Amino acid sequence: MFSKDIYVSRRQQLQGTVKSGILLFPGNGNVGMNCRDNWFHFRQDSTFLYYTGINQPDLYFLIDIDNDKEILFGNDLTPEDMVWVGAADPLQVFADKAGIQEVRPLKELASYLKTASGKGQKVHYLPPYRAQTTVEISEMLDIPTQEVANQKSVDFIKAVVAQRSYKSDIELSEITKAVDITADMHIHAIKNVKVGRTEKEIAAELEAIASSKGSSISFPIILTKDGQYLHNHATSAVLNEGDLVLVDCGAETLMNYAGDMTRTMPAGERFTDLQKEVYNIVLDAHESSIAALKPGVLFKDVHELAASRLVEGLKGMGLMKGNTEDAVQAGAHTLFFQCGLGHMMGMDVHDMENLGEEYVGYTETLKKNPAFGFRSLRLGRALEERFVITVEPGLYFNPFLIDKWKAEGKYTDFVNYDAVEKFKTFGGIRVEEDLLITKDGSQILGKPVAKTVADVEELKNS
Amino acid sequence: MFSKDIYVSRRQQLQGTVKSGILLFPGNGNVGMNCRDNWFHFRQDSTFLYYTGINQPDLYFLIDIDNDKEILFGNDLTPEDMVWVGAADPLQVFADKAGIQEVRPLKELASYLKTASGKGQKVHYLPPYRAQTTVEISEMLDIPTQEVANQKSVDFIKAVVAQRSYKSDIELSEITKAVDITADMHIHAIKNVKVGRTEKEIAAELEAIASSKGSSISFPIILTKDGQYLHNHATSAVLNEGDLVLVDCGAETLMNYAGDMTRTMPAGERFTDLQKEVYNIVLDAHESSIAALKPGVLFKDVHELAASRLVEGLKGMGLMKGNTEDAVQAGAHTLFFQCGLGHMMGMDVHDMENLGEEYVGYTETLKKNPAFGFRSLRLGRALEERFVITVEPGLYFNPFLIDKWKAEGKYTDFVNYDAVEKFKTFGGIRVEEDLLITKDGSQILGKPVAKTVADVEELKNS
Ligand SMILES: [Mn+2]
Ligand SMILES: [Mn+2]
Repeated sequence: MFSKDIYVSRRQQLQGTVKSGILLFPGNGNVGMNCRDNWFHFRQDSTFLYYTGINQPDLYFLIDIDNDKEILFGNDLTPEDMVWVGAADPLQVFADKAGIQEVRPLKELASYLKTASGKGQKVHYLPPYRAQTTVEISEMLDIPTQEVANQKSVDFIKAVVAQRSYKSDIELSEITKAVDITADMHIHAIKNVKVGRTEKEIAAELEAIASSKGSSISFPIILTKDGQYLHNHATSAVLNEGDLVLVDCGAETLMNYAGDMTRTMPAGERFTDLQKEVYNIVLDAHESSIAALKPGVLFKDVHELAASRLVEGLKGMGLMKGNTEDAVQAGAHTLFFQCGLGHMMGMDVHDMENLGEEYVGYTETLKKNPAFGFRSLRLGRALEERFVITVEPGLYFNPFLIDKWKAEGKYTDFVNYDAVEKFKTFGGIRVEEDLLITKDGSQILGKPVAKTVADVEELKNS
Repeated sequence: MFSKDIYVSRRQQLQGTVKSGILLFPGNGNVGMNCRDNWFHFRQDSTFLYYTGINQPDLYFLIDIDNDKEILFGNDLTPEDMVWVGAADPLQVFADKAGIQEVRPLKELASYLKTASGKGQKVHYLPPYRAQTTVEISEMLDIPTQEVANQKSVDFIKAVVAQRSYKSDIELSEITKAVDITADMHIHAIKNVKVGRTEKEIAAELEAIASSKGSSISFPIILTKDGQYLHNHATSAVLNEGDLVLVDCGAETLMNYAGDMTRTMPAGERFTDLQKEVYNIVLDAHESSIAALKPGVLFKDVHELAASRLVEGLKGMGLMKGNTEDAVQAGAHTLFFQCGLGHMMGMDVHDMENLGEEYVGYTETLKKNPAFGFRSLRLGRALEERFVITVEPGLYFNPFLIDKWKAEGKYTDFVNYDAVEKFKTFGGIRVEEDLLITKDGSQILGKPVAKTVADVEELKNS
């Protein structure tokens, strides 16, 4: 945990923003894999952690703003529990460390909320992402399960986003730790991706680095020779000479801050000339985007800049044609770059994803473009100092999309489908870094990892 | 998947047992860690796999016994989905491989069930262990979430247990694969548990072996110098000279069969004399139990045999006293052996745990003993040929329990508390193997792993 005053002042600021009602923070429980008691690893809810720092399952916390009370609800371990899991501090000890005065048994929560609702107090909660939380809110507040998400508190969401978006120094130090472990994973990947090995074998080694140095991975590892499929995971596939391997992975620290980087490398010793050419287009888009980052700039505009750089490069290779800006505005680049340029990062790899992109990445006046490609851009709003974001342009030669759009005659003004045809087995390339927005620009976080063709090849064969 | 006829005949047998109504099989979905779309690794429901073999998320299967229909409900990937996850076979292909005739969109399931219920058909379902399944059943069958578990079908449970308890040859071959990978994990542990390393580092390496050779771990790895706490997981604690390290872990194969073994080893090069002495008591109980296994024997009796051997050994060390059988019947051994001797193992590490111990491990006439210690024995019933079980006796010197029972004056006829006092920092020892019950005895599954003091020390220092 951070020091007590951090949690206390975060909560004070939150109360000051929402002003009235009860703020309900459901902590996460354990989730059964194939039986109730055979658990996935425990992951506390990020907002619960942000305001309390308590990394224990089966708790609820509430702030009763109207009555100026903060209460942690949960059950202490019984002596019988300690036979199984060993000693644990009573909840009061955790509460003290978080500056929370009062602890009550979990079974008193429902009646506390019922009494409060009966008196006309509004119970604010964030949109649940675990079904267990939906069930509990439904039962305690007497809301049908189908209605629970709809009755989320937008005021609460906005107040949380207004705090968690800006990373404090101590958070930046945690994020940097996460990115450093993430860098170690990538250095291991570049050295150990080899012809004859399976994707899964190498992914397992990367996960071991994350688990031994931090708490775990921050998201399921993408390690694939089919990088053209954006969220393809590691399989039993064996790597062959000529394969391009895309590795997108991140570590989470013991304090649950995330890293998220991507590198793309040849399975064999060297990139082919064609791979180098495409790689350098992606790297140019990556570097141009980073150069454009500073407070006040719309990230949507940086996304479009990246798209323009990619189109320019593809035109140079004869895969695209026509006016670059027209191509981007029409969305023709989305044949090769179907996703967003980046996202916020913090305690969640897609930070605050559970609170809704419309509140985190967009504003009342800047709404998300619903067109294909653009709708996958999670962050469009103006950047501000202390935001931490990723920049991750890529080129993805997806054979299904190529065949489909060719058959539909889509974007024929901008795409040379005949030239594209031979790229249907090329794969995908992405290069991703984590960055802090500074007063007048940005700063790449964490220790450096080989990024140019020459550096990747050198590290690979070192 | 196994061959189609296996799934077809399993379902025929099941229909023949339950005889009427609709059998509903909810497949598992993905579960969000900290956001809806940042998933834990996908684990299909074991019963769904057993009867269909289909290892894909977000499906339901049903057998309408009264109308002789089998229907798989789910949604095919859209071309947009394939941008993200690549090509996938349509559901009809999976259904064909499972011998299922009909595939319908998921949205038609609720009305199918409503119509059937309206006509008076009973909808049988197994007790859900994921909240998402509870929500879905609640919404589709119009049962309050609090009531969903209560309205489970006992007929359905018993029919499933009557099949899954007996492992076929092809299942035994999968379980053996799982135990072989598990053995590799233990061999790695014995060689790599070393003074100065952290528990987490080594646990991460074991998990990497499971993930690279199979699908994953079959349960969260226990790797701890505090083996006296039964379900303690790996922490950042550093191993020191003199520590005993208890490693309980297992792999799951790509077909989702589990292994589950335990070894206990010194952090340093050798066991101390005292550690050897206690180790050999546990090993004697382990071997005596295995020698007693055969069809017809109550596993409850084997558990008591193990307890007797432990008491004999502890008497030899001066920690216990009095008549051995009286001590076991009184439960005095539970100060040192608080859990059960073993459990069924198959697709779940505690096989069919989600269906309820009363149906899996006990019978109408043999009910579980609710006393401390005995109530943690998941399996009490008579063994039968083709059961796969674990045998895992242990001695656990839990300081809380020792202090508590000493203060309460509990079992003073059988326990020499003064002698026990110096064991409060000893730790815990467990030795576990996976076994098949054969026609006239049992057979240890998988490749051998060092088990005697001499063999463990030799492997450690090899
Ligand atoms: Mn990213
Ligand atoms: Mn076991």
